[in-house]
Amino acid sequence: MLPNLTPDTALAERLFDELRAATHDGVGITREAYGPGEAKAHAIVGAAAAQLGLEARHDPIGNLVMTLPGSDRAAKRVLLGSHLDSVKTGGNYDGAAGVLAGLAAIAGMKRAGFVPARDVAVVAVRAEEAGSWFPVSYPGSRGALGLLKPEELALRRQDSGRTLAEHMREEGFDPGFVERGGRTFSAEDTAAFLELHIEQGPVLDAEGIAVGIVTGIPGSRRLRKARVIGEYNHSGATPRKYRRDAAIALAELAHRVDERWARLEAMGHALVCTFCVLETTEEAGFTKIAGEARFQLDVRSVNPRSVDALMETLYEIVPEIEARRGVRFELGAETSSRAAPMDAAIQQGLTRAAASLGVSHRAMASGGGHDAAAFVQAGIPAGMLFVRNQNGSHNPNEAMRMEDFRSACAVVTRWAAEMAQ
Amino acid sequence: MLPNLTPDTALAERLFDELRAATHDGVGITREAYGPGEAKAHAIVGAAAAQLGLEARHDPIGNLVMTLPGSDRAAKRVLLGSHLDSVKTGGNYDGAAGVLAGLAAIAGMKRAGFVPARDVAVVAVRAEEAGSWFPVSYPGSRGALGLLKPEELALRRQDSGRTLAEHMREEGFDPGFVERGGRTFSAEDTAAFLELHIEQGPVLDAEGIAVGIVTGIPGSRRLRKARVIGEYNHSGATPRKYRRDAAIALAELAHRVDERWARLEAMGHALVCTFCVLETTEEAGFTKIAGEARFQLDVRSVNPRSVDALMETLYEIVPEIEARRGVRFELGAETSSRAAPMDAAIQQGLTRAAASLGVSHRAMASGGGHDAAAFVQAGIPAGMLFVRNQNGSHNPNEAMRMEDFRSACAVVTRWAAEMAQ
Repeated sequence: MLPNLTPDTALAERLFDELRAATHDGVGITREAYGPGEAKAHAIVGAAAAQLGLEARHDPIGNLVMTLPGSDRAAKRVLLGSHLDSVKTGGNYDGAAGVLAGLAAIAGMKRAGFVPARDVAVVAVRAEEAGSWFPVSYPGSRGALGLLKPEELALRRQDSGRTLAEHMREEGFDPGFVERGGRTFSAEDTAAFLELHIEQGPVLDAEGIAVGIVTGIPGSRRLRKARVIGEYNHSGATPRKYRRDAAIALAELAHRVDERWARLEAMGHALVCTFCVLETTEEAGFTKIAGEARFQLDVRSVNPRSVDALMETLYEIVPEIEARRGVRFELGAETSSRAAPMDAAIQQGLTRAAASLGVSHRAMASGGGHDAAAFVQAGIPAGMLFVRNQNGSHNPNEAMRMEDFRSACAVVTRWAAEMAQ
Repeated sequence: MLPNLTPDTALAERLFDELRAATHDGVGITREAYGPGEAKAHAIVGAAAAQLGLEARHDPIGNLVMTLPGSDRAAKRVLLGSHLDSVKTGGNYDGAAGVLAGLAAIAGMKRAGFVPARDVAVVAVRAEEAGSWFPVSYPGSRGALGLLKPEELALRRQDSGRTLAEHMREEGFDPGFVERGGRTFSAEDTAAFLELHIEQGPVLDAEGIAVGIVTGIPGSRRLRKARVIGEYNHSGATPRKYRRDAAIALAELAHRVDERWARLEAMGHALVCTFCVLETTEEAGFTKIAGEARFQLDVRSVNPRSVDALMETLYEIVPEIEARRGVRFELGAETSSRAAPMDAAIQQGLTRAAASLGVSHRAMASGGGHDAAAFVQAGIPAGMLFVRNQNGSHNPNEAMRMEDFRSACAVVTRWAAEMAQ
């Protein structure tokens, strides 16, 4: 029998306030990856962990690991956590909620005098939002897991022009850890990783459900620099059959791909498809037929076959439109990422915990990518718990109700205590 | 029996060269409406008319009228001509070809000693390209026909910030003529107006035909500031049913309106439909669902019922897309212009002239608007003759073969001589 463990959510709420006060930029929250905002957040959370009497240390590349020791220090640890950095002018909860939920869980265990059978640790990962600062995915968690390639250290931050290695060094860390193949966590020493995160989407809020138990992080196929080339012509003087209209060719492609998505969904596929940008160029103007248009396409699903089914349609439609409309598509290089399914046993454990606590829950795919995907790639069973939130994320209006956060923390604590028995 | 009249196309060719030399801007041709480029062109053409011994005078608002007197000076004149101004960095033939063709015709008549029964005059209209300089259509021809409203004189040129009246005065003319309701031409003194113009479109060139006999100048219905309002959301985290995707709503509208155009064309309607601009806004970006998109739509036909049939479809589709996709269209104010059908007798006369001269020809609608539309509005029978050209117009690559121009001048001369008998 487990003692009745209650997470210390008052601590988490105080830390949310401290984080906000320290990293508010006047409009929203800015905690630059490997920059001053992230450093302030790590200092606040690290101090709280020390005050709680946890073992707290930064690994060589700056991930903060806070550990409640278990009775068997050699047993594989249970790891909780998320990231503390943010996008520029984002919100206070994206990332931080997962770190503070972990801290609330182990603070609650410690307060109750609960000694787990194995270490329960919380990691504050560096630079999960690196994508908006550096052209590299998850350098913090991938660096901790031995998955970051040394050449990625040479990639430059868009605004500063300096490399990831330089920024790591400036913050007092050692990129040599990556070059030497070092690892902070591995499948040999970590039994499971659980990341709590705000949903970032509207589903839980629309459906009146407090938490989502994540089935997987989707893989993607993406076109970031696609173009349609036609011919600029006079809109009055050019009959239909002499046109090479890039705008209408793109509209047809987007509409038909979207219709295909609707059909796939009706057939039971779960995926998303977004023409994020769709635009005629600056040369376009009134009384001109557009000679060029650009677009960006983002297709994601936990099931790669669903993504492939949509992209196949795109590649079928393109030559047909080219032939009929006299245009040329330059789709550019495709980028892709692999889906990361969440561990089935963790999903079951979270479902049991939520049910026993009376917390409303549903299974759902993640929309965005998360550090948990890197743990999956490293062979560590991973799970994610989404918390209902409002107003999306990556913007200053991002919101989360504390009652939902408290419910989610209770689920995390229950699950972690079970795992660590 | 008419004498065998030959237009003085050598004169026209010399004047094309002089115009190009005087108004080349380094890249293309720039002859600003009521500005220095147009003034240079008028000086060159006016001097040539004086040298030919024609009556040449500017009307009070600067239109240059060059007359070969007929035997009955009280009879209604036959009027030829077009404009001498250009868009910024345009080509040498758009406008000037019609003025020089008229001059070639009456120079040929004079050289042959032909005295027409009525005056045959050539007008070099001011400011036909006003639309690219002032926010007003055809101030030169409409001013000459008593159709320009005095309040339009107060409209300001985009770049200079000064009014049309000020620019007229700077060039030595009298905007008071417009305020007093003055008229240079009317249905009482002008039997017909014929405007030769480069086609500006690809049809004659593609079909290997030298000249087009214009059936009419299309009317239009236009949306210049239309928007679709949706909601910005995370492209990964927002399932299909929670989206308000402005980009895909616009793509659907454009594609379906274009399909309607294809069906109308198959049913025998002649019209053009162009989404000139179609774009997500600057806020769009990768991993975002577009919350807003803008577009411009230009629909034209000589037959207003064809334009209306297309626009009805648009207004039917919009609420359906709004309801299904959770977006809102803000179509903004529609602007419209009336179609100006060309006079049937003039079309027949031009067809006879072309046939008897062995000049390949076809009937066709105009694509763009022209001064001839103002003459129709004033109740003066009008016609247009298009000359095959290459590379469109309003750009420095605009081209026209002199052999086609000579053929067209022969048709104009034959027609004018018949009309003036």
